[in-house]
Amino acid sequence: MILEKYTGPIDLKYMTYEELEKLAEEVRDYILDVTAKNGGHVAPGLGVVELTIALLRVFDPPKDIIVWDIGHQAYPWKILTDRKDKFPTLRQYGGISGFLRREESPYDAFGAGHSSTSISAGLGFRVAKDLLKRDGYVVMVIGDGAMTAGMAFEALNNAGHLRPNKFIVILNDNEMSISPNVGAISTYLSKIISGRFVQETRQKIKRLVQHLGGPAERFMKLTEEFLKGLISPGVIFEELGFNYIGPINGHDLPALESTLKNVKEIEGPVLLHVYTKKGKGYKPAEKDPVTWHGVAPYKRESGEFIKKPSPPTWTSVFGKAIVKMAEMDEKVVVITPAMKEGSGLVEFAEKFPNRFFDVGIAEQHACTFAGGLAAEGLKPVACYYSTFLQRAYDQVIHDIALQKLHVVFAIDRAGLVGEDGPTHHGVFDLSYLRCIPNMIVCAPKDEQELIDLLYTGLNQNLPFALRYPRGPAYGVPTGDPKLIPVGSWEELLEGEDGVILAVGYPVYQALKAAEELKKEGIRLGVVNARFVKPMDEQMLLDLCSRYDLFITVEDNTVVGGFGSGVLEFLSNRGILKRVITLGIPDRFIEHGNQNLLRNLVGIDAEGIARSVRKALRRVL
Amino acid sequence: MILEKYTGPIDLKYMTYEELEKLAEEVRDYILDVTAKNGGHVAPGLGVVELTIALLRVFDPPKDIIVWDIGHQAYPWKILTDRKDKFPTLRQYGGISGFLRREESPYDAFGAGHSSTSISAGLGFRVAKDLLKRDGYVVMVIGDGAMTAGMAFEALNNAGHLRPNKFIVILNDNEMSISPNVGAISTYLSKIISGRFVQETRQKIKRLVQHLGGPAERFMKLTEEFLKGLISPGVIFEELGFNYIGPINGHDLPALESTLKNVKEIEGPVLLHVYTKKGKGYKPAEKDPVTWHGVAPYKRESGEFIKKPSPPTWTSVFGKAIVKMAEMDEKVVVITPAMKEGSGLVEFAEKFPNRFFDVGIAEQHACTFAGGLAAEGLKPVACYYSTFLQRAYDQVIHDIALQKLHVVFAIDRAGLVGEDGPTHHGVFDLSYLRCIPNMIVCAPKDEQELIDLLYTGLNQNLPFALRYPRGPAYGVPTGDPKLIPVGSWEELLEGEDGVILAVGYPVYQALKAAEELKKEGIRLGVVNARFVKPMDEQMLLDLCSRYDLFITVEDNTVVGGFGSGVLEFLSNRGILKRVITLGIPDRFIEHGNQNLLRNLVGIDAEGIARSVRKALRRVL
Repeated sequence: MILEKYTGPIDLKYMTYEELEKLAEEVRDYILDVTAKNGGHVAPGLGVVELTIALLRVFDPPKDIIVWDIGHQAYPWKILTDRKDKFPTLRQYGGISGFLRREESPYDAFGAGHSSTSISAGLGFRVAKDLLKRDGYVVMVIGDGAMTAGMAFEALNNAGHLRPNKFIVILNDNEMSISPNVGAISTYLSKIISGRFVQETRQKIKRLVQHLGGPAERFMKLTEEFLKGLISPGVIFEELGFNYIGPINGHDLPALESTLKNVKEIEGPVLLHVYTKKGKGYKPAEKDPVTWHGVAPYKRESGEFIKKPSPPTWTSVFGKAIVKMAEMDEKVVVITPAMKEGSGLVEFAEKFPNRFFDVGIAEQHACTFAGGLAAEGLKPVACYYSTFLQRAYDQVIHDIALQKLHVVFAIDRAGLVGEDGPTHHGVFDLSYLRCIPNMIVCAPKDEQELIDLLYTGLNQNLPFALRYPRGPAYGVPTGDPKLIPVGSWEELLEGEDGVILAVGYPVYQALKAAEELKKEGIRLGVVNARFVKPMDEQMLLDLCSRYDLFITVEDNTVVGGFGSGVLEFLSNRGILKRVITLGIPDRFIEHGNQNLLRNLVGIDAEGIARSVRKALRRVL
Repeated sequence: MILEKYTGPIDLKYMTYEELEKLAEEVRDYILDVTAKNGGHVAPGLGVVELTIALLRVFDPPKDIIVWDIGHQAYPWKILTDRKDKFPTLRQYGGISGFLRREESPYDAFGAGHSSTSISAGLGFRVAKDLLKRDGYVVMVIGDGAMTAGMAFEALNNAGHLRPNKFIVILNDNEMSISPNVGAISTYLSKIISGRFVQETRQKIKRLVQHLGGPAERFMKLTEEFLKGLISPGVIFEELGFNYIGPINGHDLPALESTLKNVKEIEGPVLLHVYTKKGKGYKPAEKDPVTWHGVAPYKRESGEFIKKPSPPTWTSVFGKAIVKMAEMDEKVVVITPAMKEGSGLVEFAEKFPNRFFDVGIAEQHACTFAGGLAAEGLKPVACYYSTFLQRAYDQVIHDIALQKLHVVFAIDRAGLVGEDGPTHHGVFDLSYLRCIPNMIVCAPKDEQELIDLLYTGLNQNLPFALRYPRGPAYGVPTGDPKLIPVGSWEELLEGEDGVILAVGYPVYQALKAAEELKKEGIRLGVVNARFVKPMDEQMLLDLCSRYDLFITVEDNTVVGGFGSGVLEFLSNRGILKRVITLGIPDRFIEHGNQNLLRNLVGIDAEGIARSVRKALRRVL
């Protein structure tokens, strides 16, 4: 075992290629062992083991800055820099993160988790190093999928203008982002890799030359190579001011290394195009890299997933519901920014290929595109993860809400997401959406209500945001969709000592807490406050006449969220009531098991009961 | 006068080129007459008069969809479609908007105000038309500056992949956005216009051919034109799946028209590259299109601006202060997404060219770039307009706040901006920033405090957001910067009947209101709550022991803003107090005079006094 004795990057510089290849195999093994237990991103890391080794041999981090995009692919990096021993704690509470974190290691130059930030951050490092007269290279590794995001283009445009030296963008091209890639840029890249760009150009010239005949043909032979060089396959990058090098095989360690060494000597910014195989070295992942992008625990040998029997996920309930809605209403269309699988849209895409739009990693565009669809009379459902909708914030305000366009935002991964941690928790959406005029904002208590609210949203001619969590739902039986009056709440339980107003996932937790407290003689009312905006003002006034203690519960930050909405309403009406707002505290929440995190912040049944007891002790 | 008798687009189809040229002149005249009185965007509209006429002759809106990007340039459009008579009400309260609005006219297919949304929206229209089997073309007009925004690239990438027909992007290239353009893409475009792209390629081939001699030279002659065609100057757009046509002169009406007619017949998406002169037809604007992009009222004949004597603007105070800070601390660097003039950075850029970074219209990149600069140890000040910071929301959360990076956000145009209207009001920032952990959020009461808070921000190792309004400040004398303890408020006036907690611009208004009310025997305390986050909890507790009525005032939405923060604090502490939250109501606010709007929403002295009287009547 080479990895066992491995102490850090310096070791790599003294290994033979044979040893390095052995090490690469062991790193892959280690990743598979740990992710089989913990789950995590498998295929991306397996694809860049050789690239990681080459980077660590040719460059000297942390003096040289290596910025990995997103961080899906950084497991080999973590193992081979300084987290080999901690690697088994991956994604567990208190353990190391599944993404990159500055706090975790000096080798993680810039934290990541969302796509396409690396070139911007890298350019910052480069410019700062130059101004501060510090030495060192800046290298960014970005996937082909991440390249479709506008932010990456903005950074390339800026870098191509500034033309810094010692600035190397490595395009890790595995012809996929999370799903197979879409968009013109990816067609272009695969044309490069297959050599078709040069080939097609050469064919065109050849046809002309044959047509002309004679001396032209002789000339052609002479200039063919020259023309090939003139028409660089990386012409887009060349025109943006980069030196384009590649494409080269990202699993050929010696080739990678010698290319990287050459690239170090080139003046001006470089784009090095490397092609790799996502899931490399693990058959199930090679065969199905989409599934194996990020996975739950699995059996290492067979690649079978270890499924715990559990209710269907909120995502899958949504996925089935949206198919049904589309069958009922042919104006329903779906947009996703590269999250077909994650958002539960596989079936929809198969059944309605011409009403399904995967626009690539392009959150801004996805939103305004939906706006255009709505303006012409369709009923677009824009599917986002809560945390990624942050990327389209301006577009939600400016292109949808201001124009009162009928776009339904189906917001998955709202609340605490668990092991993916602070970059992925969807705990700000109620706050940042609630403050936008014209928006309807709601969250279902269970899967039937998810169906009903989606149906309601599709039948409301207004911007409509529906958010629901990651993971298993509550397992209630589901039936036909029905309309829910916009702004209506639902009184689930009457009480005496106070009332809990809960939104979304915490509603059932509130019911459980009320049940528990009843045993202790505390009688609480419970209300399903499914509409965060508009609120059920009539019911709220009625509740004010019956209760003196209000407890709000949401899986959103307590700053500016649903609880604040209740406070605002009371203050507007001049009503003085004791209100306790439960939710995500005002700090970034670490990664860890989803239910553990919910427990820690006190928004599960236990936490709600605890807070109520404490409040009543104070009041009584 | 042709314009006088003009009834609508149909008239254009019966005019001779001579008449059309006369009309173009009259439209320019009309724009100058109205903007001289009302102020507004002058140079952009003057540049596209012929293009507007050509579009209206060749296409049939509203059946054909014409989407103008941003809308700066849509004055001729407004005049020549259906707002000729209302045009003198431009940008005035109750009058027509300075941007595009669906509510205003069926010709405004998609509202705008922020840059680079047109291709996304247009693609939505295109796809919807195809699905709904509706006829018509979709034409988008986008400036070269807007093309640097990632969002435009995301849309091009998606459109190039979908390859729709009857989809025409017109790149209106005047080699500027608001400031002269920066970035590799603009270098590329100007290479096309100057013909240098083709020229350089031909030169390279020629050199080789001369080197080879003889038959090659003959061949060269034969193939020159072919090679020229092969190496399209629009190669980037071609590779993205577009048919590139151009560049053509955007002031040559017959050429424009015949090209547009030809372009209608091309299969697949088209990018038509048109070059125009910003400010065309008005000497002062032609000479200085940057200044004349958007202006205050001016003298039509001389181009002199009608300056009312008024205190310096918040912007100019910031501009002077940032120069001073940079002189004191060489780590201070400045980033702007294409708002050098608007953000008051001209002097900084001149004095510290290598510490000034105009990254183009690229809000997302600007933020994360600042993050990289901070991570390497510089002190970046990222200068945004409040409304444009919405574009970088995810980056503020994910790249700055989560990593606790020391980036100072200097947020101009916060609050109601006046004539630019709902797309430009900066009335959400306190809400969307306050809910982000680790952020410090503050606003100065006057220009000295702006200087002090900027200085404080540069000396705090945390994410720091400082927001201030558009327009003239209060005219207080300014001196050396001093540190303000983070989270500290300032008690300006003691009272008895209640206390006003005001943030930013409204602080002086609150003082004035208190003075007014004193005459009526109402004695109010006034507190400058300059830190919205963290709040001065100690002072707030102290105030709770002295007052029963609290009035919060902010020029931000009342949903989730500063007032909600106060409510949250009181509820957390279990303190019951009557709180009235004044601010922007939960709807989009129209355009109009800035002070008029402040009055209408009740956050000026008069409005505050009115609300206090009403509240006291209720309480007493």
